[in-house]
Amino acid sequence: MSTLDAVLNRVDQDIDRSVERLFALLRIASVSTDPAYRENCRKAAEHVANDLSSIGFETQVRPTAGHPVVVGKAHGQAAASGPRVLFYGHYDVQPVDPLDLWKTPPFEPRIEDLGGGRKIIVARGACDDKGQAMTFIEACRAFKAVTGKLPLPITTMIEGEEECGSRNLFGFVRDNAKEFQLDLALVCDTAMWNANTPAVTTSLRGLVYEQVTVTCADRDLHSGLFGGAAQNPIRVLAKALAAMHDENGRVTIPGFYEGVPDLPADILADLKALDLTAEEFLGQVGLKYSSGEKGRLVLEQITTRPTAEFNGIVGGYTGEGAKTVIPGQASAKVSFRLVGLQDPEKVRDAFHKFMRERMPADCKVEFENLGLAPAIQLSFDNPALNKARAVLGEEWGKKAVAVGAGGSIPIVADFKSVLNMDSLLVGFALDDDRVHSPNEKFDLKCFHKGIRSWARILHALAS
Amino acid sequence: MSTLDAVLNRVDQDIDRSVERLFALLRIASVSTDPAYRENCRKAAEHVANDLSSIGFETQVRPTAGHPVVVGKAHGQAAASGPRVLFYGHYDVQPVDPLDLWKTPPFEPRIEDLGGGRKIIVARGACDDKGQAMTFIEACRAFKAVTGKLPLPITTMIEGEEECGSRNLFGFVRDNAKEFQLDLALVCDTAMWNANTPAVTTSLRGLVYEQVTVTCADRDLHSGLFGGAAQNPIRVLAKALAAMHDENGRVTIPGFYEGVPDLPADILADLKALDLTAEEFLGQVGLKYSSGEKGRLVLEQITTRPTAEFNGIVGGYTGEGAKTVIPGQASAKVSFRLVGLQDPEKVRDAFHKFMRERMPADCKVEFENLGLAPAIQLSFDNPALNKARAVLGEEWGKKAVAVGAGGSIPIVADFKSVLNMDSLLVGFALDDDRVHSPNEKFDLKCFHKGIRSWARILHALAS
Repeated sequence: MSTLDAVLNRVDQDIDRSVERLFALLRIASVSTDPAYRENCRKAAEHVANDLSSIGFETQVRPTAGHPVVVGKAHGQAAASGPRVLFYGHYDVQPVDPLDLWKTPPFEPRIEDLGGGRKIIVARGACDDKGQAMTFIEACRAFKAVTGKLPLPITTMIEGEEECGSRNLFGFVRDNAKEFQLDLALVCDTAMWNANTPAVTTSLRGLVYEQVTVTCADRDLHSGLFGGAAQNPIRVLAKALAAMHDENGRVTIPGFYEGVPDLPADILADLKALDLTAEEFLGQVGLKYSSGEKGRLVLEQITTRPTAEFNGIVGGYTGEGAKTVIPGQASAKVSFRLVGLQDPEKVRDAFHKFMRERMPADCKVEFENLGLAPAIQLSFDNPALNKARAVLGEEWGKKAVAVGAGGSIPIVADFKSVLNMDSLLVGFALDDDRVHSPNEKFDLKCFHKGIRSWARILHALAS
Repeated sequence: MSTLDAVLNRVDQDIDRSVERLFALLRIASVSTDPAYRENCRKAAEHVANDLSSIGFETQVRPTAGHPVVVGKAHGQAAASGPRVLFYGHYDVQPVDPLDLWKTPPFEPRIEDLGGGRKIIVARGACDDKGQAMTFIEACRAFKAVTGKLPLPITTMIEGEEECGSRNLFGFVRDNAKEFQLDLALVCDTAMWNANTPAVTTSLRGLVYEQVTVTCADRDLHSGLFGGAAQNPIRVLAKALAAMHDENGRVTIPGFYEGVPDLPADILADLKALDLTAEEFLGQVGLKYSSGEKGRLVLEQITTRPTAEFNGIVGGYTGEGAKTVIPGQASAKVSFRLVGLQDPEKVRDAFHKFMRERMPADCKVEFENLGLAPAIQLSFDNPALNKARAVLGEEWGKKAVAVGAGGSIPIVADFKSVLNMDSLLVGFALDDDRVHSPNEKFDLKCFHKGIRSWARILHALAS
């Protein structure tokens, strides 16, 4: 029997105890945003540290200004060859309210049998991210049990503030850059394509988020008196925003598409084969037709193409009934999702210029930046990516798709910009996992085959 | 000495007692919007009724669901010839807060000498509308004193709810239409062009006020997940609103300008001669350039041209900081000022059509009407208008301008639509009268020459 087969066997034999270990972690109510749960967060960190120690990691519960980071290192005893990897996950969870919508208490994990062979693990954090992080740890445990050592030099970074924006992790990574600057980051906090099709997330869109305020008159005016002559900032703002997309859904800001790559033909063909229609994707929220760039797949529009969205607008009288006012000010929140090599600062500057050019002589426009992060793009010829896709295909019996994610995991951008390290994002969440909602669950199959998947990936990376 | 000269002499000799009579009315705190002042409103109505009785009117304090209307009739004893006129004014006043900004108590009227021969009457209601209404009553009093009778068959309608929207007067006028359907309405609640130039307000703009709501998805969406594909209602709304004016400031809604008259050449020449620049008019609110229809005087833009204004807009996240949401809904308040024969219902329907045509397949648009009133336009060849302009010129030594007012006096629309009667709006307010604000004032000169002006107008109408 090959080493890998032995490890996979061990995973299968040990699955009930893997679930028990996950349950032990799920019972700790490590809600990071609520100060009342501070002690629980410390307990969860120590629990994870002890668990990692038990399979050969040298562990530290490292303090931050917020909740601690669990750092584990297994270098000395690991296989000499293969890339040095940094595994990132988080032990904190979202708040549980509204509590009365939970069928059973959120921190009393249970297995529910849905019939047809489908079982789910129900608890807050079952998927995000305790369950997902444990798929990696359990894979390491199986290697340790079978071979006596870990397959690669592995460092873990399991943080406790992901659900409140990783606010202290940025500084932690910067301050300890040398320690964590390894060969490759592994992240388990993303989703599968569907219940049968594995996925590697190869891009995360970046973000430029701006608040823009247009000021005309120095006060609110009576529209009966000034209407028809005084500049109206709602009109000025609406005109400028309306000019930001052309009739094909493309963003018209000059230079906006600089650094936006086209997908390699084979990757595009894979996406096309998934055959996700606008009607199917948008039907869940009551829509049918995409408003995005014409000539692009919906899947491109929401993951690998940049966007300009208006997230909020306000000006003048917005209460009940009528008020004949011409406001002095109107403002909007405008965000851009970035891809590839788009430069966030250049996009922000081009947006400012675009708005300024549309201001009539009397109008002042001001900006406040509320977010600025580049996109993450894993090169499609990254050898780790291709090894992972190959072995995921072996595990699931279906080719693993390389997909982009519409949102961002902020620390992953720092892994690239601060640590100069690519991230391989592999996860086993499903769309119906109710992450951040009551009755969060993780399919037992996803947990089990997730462990097996990491065993395969670690083995492949070591080869 | 002609009758008119005798009447004007009498006005001059009696001016101190005219001021005393105005003071007596100003001492009654007839704030109509505050139920605590209900008794004061009744007192003011009775005070006015008694005063009208003393100069030959048969008076009634007529109840409404709110404050009473003072109706005075002087038909029997009046001159047989000349038009039957309805004089409209109001005895109620605005609230006085913030009280601490008043230099002296608002219901203790006083004369303040500003030097250079300029004296002002300071009190709440000094101008709006007790002072203005009294210019007419004092003119009648002088006629009565000199000739023993009033110069025309006059009915007065002095209401007590103008400052709360004349809410019961509409029904009162409709219910008693036969009684008030006379030849001409006279209104004294408008302004002069400036301190030396009298004005007749020949038009009041009408109003269509609509709330428009655009709905796309059936919930708020995460912009990271749906951005780039899901229709954004802020974008849809901004595009539609932005299309509502062309680059020349004209409203693009098909048929919008139907019924909009061009000003007669002589009236336009008069307006031009006033030489009101955009810089002068808009400078007071921090602006310099008009955003209105190109090729039109500012004075046309704000009074005799129709407009489309955006009074409010709201959608998505409008709080502090960033939220990556694509809202399900966005809405705006849109109002149109109408002139001439523009049909409010046609304008509303054309607006609905304009918006509907700009909705992508997935989007729903809904409307709520918040106001619908036609414009008032006094024909420029109305004989009463030309008589009034002529004698105002004699009184003030400067030609009276025929101006439009940007706002509306709602009951005047009903005088036309319900009573089929034109209104002649002549007033003596100045821009610096602080109407509705602390330290409201009325220039003594405006009061005095206002009385003389009405004496001349009444005399001219009777000839």
